[in-house]
Amino acid sequence: MISYDYIREGDAIYRQSFNIIRKEADLSAFTEEQADIAVRMIHACGLVGAAEHFLFSADFVAKARGALHAGAPIFCDAEMVAHGITRARLPADNPVICTLRDGRTVEIARTIGNTRSAAALNLWDGMGGALVAIGNAPTALFRLLELLDAGAPRPAAIIGMPVGFVGAAESKDALIAHSFGIPYAVVRGRMGGSAMTAAAINALARAGL
Amino acid sequence: MISYDYIREGDAIYRQSFNIIRKEADLSAFTEEQADIAVRMIHACGLVGAAEHFLFSADFVAKARGALHAGAPIFCDAEMVAHGITRARLPADNPVICTLRDGRTVEIARTIGNTRSAAALNLWDGMGGALVAIGNAPTALFRLLELLDAGAPRPAAIIGMPVGFVGAAESKDALIAHSFGIPYAVVRGRMGGSAMTAAAINALARAGL
Repeated sequence: MISYDYIREGDAIYRQSFNIIRKEADLSAFTEEQADIAVRMIHACGLVGAAEHFLFSADFVAKARGALHAGAPIFCDAEMVAHGITRARLPADNPVICTLRDGRTVEIARTIGNTRSAAALNLWDGMGGALVAIGNAPTALFRLLELLDAGAPRPAAIIGMPVGFVGAAESKDALIAHSFGIPYAVVRGRMGGSAMTAAAINALARAGL
Repeated sequence: MISYDYIREGDAIYRQSFNIIRKEADLSAFTEEQADIAVRMIHACGLVGAAEHFLFSADFVAKARGALHAGAPIFCDAEMVAHGITRARLPADNPVICTLRDGRTVEIARTIGNTRSAAALNLWDGMGGALVAIGNAPTALFRLLELLDAGAPRPAAIIGMPVGFVGAAESKDALIAHSFGIPYAVVRGRMGGSAMTAAAINALARAGL
C-alpha cells in the first residue's frame, strides 16, 4: 500500500500557504489591507511573482468592503467568478449576479455588435453602488467603461481582472487611465482570471481565514 | 466621449489569441493534439511560460477524448471547474458532476479526517471509465490516489491540476510517479487551477474554436 504524506486539515493548509506567500512575495507596494487581498490572489494562481502586476487604487478596499457590508450586489462577467465566491463569507448575504447565460444576451450581442460577455452587462440592473467583478472577458471591461462613459450608474468599486492575449492588458490600462472616479483593483497585463477575481472578493468579504 | 478600440467578435478574439500563443510559446515538447490543449490552457492563465510545466502522458488525449465521445461523466473537485466547462462543446451531453456541496461531505470529512474536497470523492459514483478533473484541491488529488490504491474503479483519464503552495506540487508528483496505469495531464509545481483544468476539458471536448 502506498502512503501519501500530506496535510489534511483545511485551515492548517490555508495558514501554511499564506505564510509561504508572505515569506516569498514582495508585498511592499501594498497597504496591510491590500496585502491581505494580494495574498489570496497569489494563492489562487500559485505564483508569487504575480503580485508585481497588482494595482489597487487608494480607496478600493474601504469602498469595496463598505459596499459589501451595506448589502451591495456583486455583478460578475463569468459563471466561474460567481461560483468561486464563497457565499458563507459574504457579510450581508449579498446577491451574486451573472447574466451571461440569460437567453437575451444573444440578441443583445447581435444588436450592439459585441460579444455575449459584453452584451450581458446590458442586463445588469442596479449597478449603482454595486461591486463589479470582471474576471474573464476584456470585452466586458471595455463595455463597462463605455456604459459608464454614457452615464450608467456608478458602481462602488470595480475589480478589473480579465485574462488573455487580446484586449486584456488594454482594457485594464483603459480602466486605470480613466476609472470615472470609481475605485478599482487590477491585475495589469495578460494575467488575471476568475480564480484571482473570486479570491479578491473572498478576501474583501471577510478578513482572515 | 471616450473611444475604445478593441475587437468585439468572439471567434476573431480566439483566433488572434491562439495565434499569439503559438508564436510565443515553446510547444516543441508536445504532439500536435497535446499542443492544441496546451494552447487553450495557456489562454486560460495568460502566461505562455506556463507550458514548461505541462505534462501529458502519451495516451492521455486519445483516452480522454475516447471517454468523452463514449458519454463518460466528468467528475470535478470544484464548482469553478464544473462551471468552466462549455457544455455545448461536450460530444455526448456528458454529465458534469461536482459533489463538493453535497451536505454529506461535512460528515465524511470528519470521519476520514480530511478536507471536504477530499471527502467529496467518496460520493463519486461511477468513476470507472470516467474523466476525472482535479483543478483546485491537492487533498482531492491525494485522496484520489488513495482510493485508487485501495482498488477504486479506474477512470479513463485524470486531469491533475490543483493549484497552490501546500501539497499541490507534491500531489501532482505523486500522480506522475504512480498513476495506476491511468493516462494523465498535469501542470507540475504550484500552478494549475480551475480555469486551466476547464480549458483542457474544453479542448478535449472539441478541436478548433
